[in-house]
Amino acid sequence: MEAAPERFGRGPERLEAFSDSVFAIAITLLVLDIRLPDLTEMSTADQIGRALVALWPSYVGYFVSFITIGNAWINHHNLFRFLGSVSHGVLISNLLLLLAIGFIPFPTALLARTLGGPGEQIGVVVYAATFFANALAFNLLWVQVKRVLKPGSPPAAIAAINRSYRLGPPVSLGALVISFAFPVAGLAIITGLMILYLLPRSTGA
Amino acid sequence: MEAAPERFGRGPERLEAFSDSVFAIAITLLVLDIRLPDLTEMSTADQIGRALVALWPSYVGYFVSFITIGNAWINHHNLFRFLGSVSHGVLISNLLLLLAIGFIPFPTALLARTLGGPGEQIGVVVYAATFFANALAFNLLWVQVKRVLKPGSPPAAIAAINRSYRLGPPVSLGALVISFAFPVAGLAIITGLMILYLLPRSTGA
Amino acid sequence: MEAAPERFGRGPERLEAFSDSVFAIAITLLVLDIRLPDLTEMSTADQIGRALVALWPSYVGYFVSFITIGNAWINHHNLFRFLGSVSHGVLISNLLLLLAIGFIPFPTALLARTLGGPGEQIGVVVYAATFFANALAFNLLWVQVKRVLKPGSPPAAIAAINRSYRLGPPVSLGALVISFAFPVAGLAIITGLMILYLLPRSTGA
Amino acid sequence: MEAAPERFGRGPERLEAFSDSVFAIAITLLVLDIRLPDLTEMSTADQIGRALVALWPSYVGYFVSFITIGNAWINHHNLFRFLGSVSHGVLISNLLLLLAIGFIPFPTALLARTLGGPGEQIGVVVYAATFFANALAFNLLWVQVKRVLKPGSPPAAIAAINRSYRLGPPVSLGALVISFAFPVAGLAIITGLMILYLLPRSTGA
Repeated sequence: MEAAPERFGRGPERLEAFSDSVFAIAITLLVLDIRLPDLTEMSTADQIGRALVALWPSYVGYFVSFITIGNAWINHHNLFRFLGSVSHGVLISNLLLLLAIGFIPFPTALLARTLGGPGEQIGVVVYAATFFANALAFNLLWVQVKRVLKPGSPPAAIAAINRSYRLGPPVSLGALVISFAFPVAGLAIITGLMILYLLPRSTGA
Repeated sequence: MEAAPERFGRGPERLEAFSDSVFAIAITLLVLDIRLPDLTEMSTADQIGRALVALWPSYVGYFVSFITIGNAWINHHNLFRFLGSVSHGVLISNLLLLLAIGFIPFPTALLARTLGGPGEQIGVVVYAATFFANALAFNLLWVQVKRVLKPGSPPAAIAAINRSYRLGPPVSLGALVISFAFPVAGLAIITGLMILYLLPRSTGA
Repeated sequence: MEAAPERFGRGPERLEAFSDSVFAIAITLLVLDIRLPDLTEMSTADQIGRALVALWPSYVGYFVSFITIGNAWINHHNLFRFLGSVSHGVLISNLLLLLAIGFIPFPTALLARTLGGPGEQIGVVVYAATFFANALAFNLLWVQVKRVLKPGSPPAAIAAINRSYRLGPPVSLGALVISFAFPVAGLAIITGLMILYLLPRSTGA
Repeated sequence: MEAAPERFGRGPERLEAFSDSVFAIAITLLVLDIRLPDLTEMSTADQIGRALVALWPSYVGYFVSFITIGNAWINHHNLFRFLGSVSHGVLISNLLLLLAIGFIPFPTALLARTLGGPGEQIGVVVYAATFFANALAFNLLWVQVKRVLKPGSPPAAIAAINRSYRLGPPVSLGALVISFAFPVAGLAIITGLMILYLLPRSTGA
């Protein structure tokens, strides 16, 4: 079949809108995980105060998840600036990335609840594996976007994204392997990687 | 009443934005169904590990639902490229489609939990019925869209969508009937249909 | 303070996007209310089948809520075609409307669970009261929109919306009063009003 | 690296769409917190009525949260009218604001459940602290937006926003301090501040 004329092409607007909504929902859902204890059974302010303090892993989970997903959204936003047209490969690989993003609330909640306890190693391993899956998905999407680059995309920006994304899979795989033996070291590597991605340099901006 | 002048016409933008949000919410909600067990009662890493493995039907449900709804979104996106104007029929039939889409998390969760157990047949039947309802709703919407096609829509693309959509209702009805007797066969047919719709050929692109 | 120049004015795009998201979330949330029973305790297909049938009020609730909110979205969409600029009054009255829309899942769930039982009257009264609040909010928003109409809005369409909206508050107030004594009659009136609003004539299109 | 040409710049559209979704989700989630009691165990209309009345703190929480977040959205909307381009600082500070906004359902639910009981002081303190965090985040975002103002932004509007935002942190910090000793007074101050922000004057409109 011949290509449809330009005005029937798929613009990035709806793909961006759909992706933005998935990012937004995933980022906001974790507040649901901060479950208020049953206050009707508590008769003193002291009891209520201690019950709220005991929820700290949920607060940590909310914060970490927000930064992780927000950071991924910023990178997604940067990536799509160079998207020339929406190919089927971009649609499918973007869906796989959203699959990995939408899953983040689960390992984050698991990590927040296992840190410092007997399940710490499991929590970090699952978290590192999710991070690895996200790094793979971002690279897959980037490969697809590069096939349909907007004409005239500045080579320096493309090269900066290349450099920054190339780092993700091996480093997070390394963190995954290391966290089987040394969970805290694995977590430190992931945290470092996340800070790196938060810096403006990594976005090709 | 005479038709309102062009600039008071309903463009597809808001209809797309509303639909995108419904798709995005339905696709992200299933992560809420992966409920962390109460880890505070578990004292060894082994117990925690086994509790996480026991959640596998929820992981499967999340994955299948994501692909199903993401696929539906891609098809919806393709369809709307040829929409010329927003008629009342398009509004109503799009609402019916969203009704069917928004319901998907329920039969998916049911399927994931009944596979391999005594409720397997019920799980597949409900899932096939939902798939049938979605196929009907997509065809109803397509009928309405074809009444208000964008002028100059390429006939080859329209014909490709016709061919691909025409297949949906009879095949999924067949899968529904078959799954009363042979659940696994019914599921295989639906899976095949879903893979077909994931291929670029079916979208008229 | 003088009015800001035109290019710093508030366009309707973000107000529409925000409203669309609230409508979409409210419409999709009710699927969460269809809670799967604990299937692990059921050993026969028969038990599982009966447990699924027992969920019928949740299915009804999902359906009714979807049609109600989807219908409200269609009317909101129609209304905004004639919006010329975004005044503070439009912002505030739109927020009040969203407050009423976002509440709908609650009375709908209540209605679905009380129909046919001892709480039927309460369920219908709360539902009718919510419907009345929505009718008031739509009229308040319409008053604000009419102050900032797009120049050249066709008078016939404006008059059609006037006629259709004017009906909402007295009829739903009547349904509310009647349902204290005759719940079924109150429900019939609301259903009739909802069907009326689903017809294309009422939208000024 | 040189700046990318204009057409690869980040426009505010996606940042607005992402933010709008987060606001919309946070504002709609609280209806989930109004949990229907188990009506199947109630045999008289009287019991059901009393159970619904007992939910009043959830109704209050829904209302207060809706107004708070809706108000924040209106202010966000006003702010972005003057945004000239999307810097990395705007992205990061907007993410921090959304972090604070997305958290609001939690302290609101806590406040609604502790008012009038032994935990009242705790509820007001946590609520005031969240309000303070939101005021700080709005000011941080405003600082970043002012660095990339749209050329020609009317100075009077900028000054009005300056005046209105400057008030937020000290007043809500005052409310926080006061509510340790006099919870009701702290709540009154916050309510006053919220009404002030609801007025059109504060938005630079």
